Amino acid sequence: MILRLFLTLVALPLLGVSAADEVRAVLDRQVADWNRGDVRAFLQGYADSAETTFVSSTVVKGYQQVLRRYLDRYPTREKMGNLSFSDLDIRMLGRDYACVTGKFHLVRSPASGGNAEGIFSLLLHNTPAGWKIILDHTNP
Amino acid sequence: MILRLFLTLVALPLLGVSAADEVRAVLDRQVADWNRGDVRAFLQGYADSAETTFVSSTVVKGYQQVLRRYLDRYPTREKMGNLSFSDLDIRMLGRDYACVTGKFHLVRSPASGGNAEGIFSLLLHNTPAGWKIILDHTNP
Repeated sequence: MILRLFLTLVALPLLGVSAADEVRAVLDRQVADWNRGDVRAFLQGYADSAETTFVSSTVVKGYQQVLRRYLDRYPTREKMGNLSFSDLDIRMLGRDYACVTGKFHLVRSPASGGNAEGIFSLLLHNTPAGWKIILDHTNP
Repeated sequence: MILRLFLTLVALPLLGVSAADEVRAVLDRQVADWNRGDVRAFLQGYADSAETTFVSSTVVKGYQQVLRRYLDRYPTREKMGNLSFSDLDIRMLGRDYACVTGKFHLVRSPASGGNAEGIFSLLLHNTPAGWKIILDHTNP
């Protein structure tokens, strides 16, 4: 906690690392984790909280429920495909919150569901464990 | 501004009016304005800012752009139909931000496009002009 405070208030600003850079780094790490086939590591981008919410064709509330949805929908490396984000627009909301809009692109073989893409918006919270997604709304 | 501070910090808490009640009141007023056929009054629920964003099948950024989208899509009282919200889940994010998930229901004649419904998520900011929507993501 002290280390994070030091990094946030002293070291990272000196290095020119902004809060928006930190938010972008969370998403970059998610993409890398996804493309290694590690859904559970990808999920660490979300807050481990009963309030964490994933909105798509339904509203899924709770970190464990969101994790289960991902594990159900992406049970194999092939189903996960190769993920990238584009058009990221990061907006800081004071020190503790940020929102992001963007597009995801999934490249997959036809047998694994084919390519997919869509628009998402995210809400992130600056927690003691770092910036975490607390609300993900991805178009169905 | 002084009056708003007084209301927020002193008067409304004494009356048992929480910030979540204030957020809910913004949405209630939007529904009433919509059902009077007043798109421009409905739009006053959004922050008058170049950053205000409406996400659906595309990302529309800027209050004027969001207003134009509504005016284009709902040019007549009949096209507007009768609006209601359900399943509202309001989450306060510190003092200055709140997010809401919910469902909208539009009752319309078949000739005006028929009934419509969907899921939305909203991000609101506690501005000097009151709680305002700064990001609206409504499923296409």
